[in-house]
Amino acid sequence: MARTSIDGAETAGRAAVRREGAGERSAPDGGARGGDTRERLLAAASALFAERGYDRATVREIAARAGVNQALLFRHFGSKQALFGEVVAQGGYEQLRSTPPERLVEAVLRSLLHPPADPAGAPGASRSLKTMLRSVGGGDEVSTAVAGLGEAYAKALAELSTRHDAALRADLALSWLLGIGLTRVVAGKRPLADADPDEVCRLVLGTLGHLLDGLPEGGTPRT
Amino acid sequence: MARTSIDGAETAGRAAVRREGAGERSAPDGGARGGDTRERLLAAASALFAERGYDRATVREIAARAGVNQALLFRHFGSKQALFGEVVAQGGYEQLRSTPPERLVEAVLRSLLHPPADPAGAPGASRSLKTMLRSVGGGDEVSTAVAGLGEAYAKALAELSTRHDAALRADLALSWLLGIGLTRVVAGKRPLADADPDEVCRLVLGTLGHLLDGLPEGGTPRT
Repeated sequence: MARTSIDGAETAGRAAVRREGAGERSAPDGGARGGDTRERLLAAASALFAERGYDRATVREIAARAGVNQALLFRHFGSKQALFGEVVAQGGYEQLRSTPPERLVEAVLRSLLHPPADPAGAPGASRSLKTMLRSVGGGDEVSTAVAGLGEAYAKALAELSTRHDAALRADLALSWLLGIGLTRVVAGKRPLADADPDEVCRLVLGTLGHLLDGLPEGGTPRT
Repeated sequence: MARTSIDGAETAGRAAVRREGAGERSAPDGGARGGDTRERLLAAASALFAERGYDRATVREIAARAGVNQALLFRHFGSKQALFGEVVAQGGYEQLRSTPPERLVEAVLRSLLHPPADPAGAPGASRSLKTMLRSVGGGDEVSTAVAGLGEAYAKALAELSTRHDAALRADLALSWLLGIGLTRVVAGKRPLADADPDEVCRLVLGTLGHLLDGLPEGGTPRT
């Protein structure tokens, strides 16, 4: 399968840039400002991926916005793909930290439902979301980051059940969120692709309340 | 994204084979046996994909098993990828025809759950399933076939709800099946990847009964 690299071209370019920037490896401020540089790159990448989407945000622009040399970008992250993986993971772990488990399903669902369904010239959030969703299980650097994040989400969701099979129930809930993202954002299947996010939340949360008993009471779709 | 073709190499080889087999285009039995050839190729491909998986089944072997020239394979289907799409679609439509709507969720779920979770040297069913699941929304010839099939499944599932939003409920149910396939077969996330199929069916069908009121009564996971 020709899908080992999301961005073969930019990864291929990296060896060249590495050579070009090799002199900076021993720059006197390299160590002290390393953390800073990393943070600035992550922030710039996060903003540009959201504005333009993964494919259209170039490493040149990301480095320029962070005010650092492209060589440093590759030194810190290795590839655009790996940088994207770290941006996704960082965002996910922030959501995990700031969201109580019983609100997590809705939070994930809303972040899947809110980016526009990819009209021409749309903001990049749904493009990046698409890249992330399609990477699941792909064995690339994004999927590795996303797999770790998936484990963390599943662990949090497992707290919502008191059953012996809580971990399996959590995996199933997470599977549903993944499938909804793929069907709506990647495949664009209607009516789900056009459906009102509140309506989708109501149906999904009402149904999942029967799998995870710790979800807050909402109207079940039966009533 | 470098993922437009699942099998660039075999597709690239097709022009050469076409030239080689061009003389057969005017063979006197070409027209009369066309339907036959097509059926034989589909049957051979279906068997080989199941035995070896999409990646390991070669067009040479498929053609040999069908007893036809490779050139005819490409003339009928265009590419290995398109042939795979047709095999998947054919299997899906057969399942749709032979399964009453209220049994469809379980039938799909069981076909997702039964192939072994891809140990080394495993039968090819889970490899082909993986190829199919990963193609969702990929814009290739497999995803086109799968998208049409998805519409047909959703239409059948929508019969299981009497609500005004039956079509949305059906899309959500289908999304769950897709997400379960991806999480279990493609990502291999545990505990879902190792879970007993009966256990998964019990949990999913019990929960989905609250979304689609036409599903047969099963023990709900709450009891």
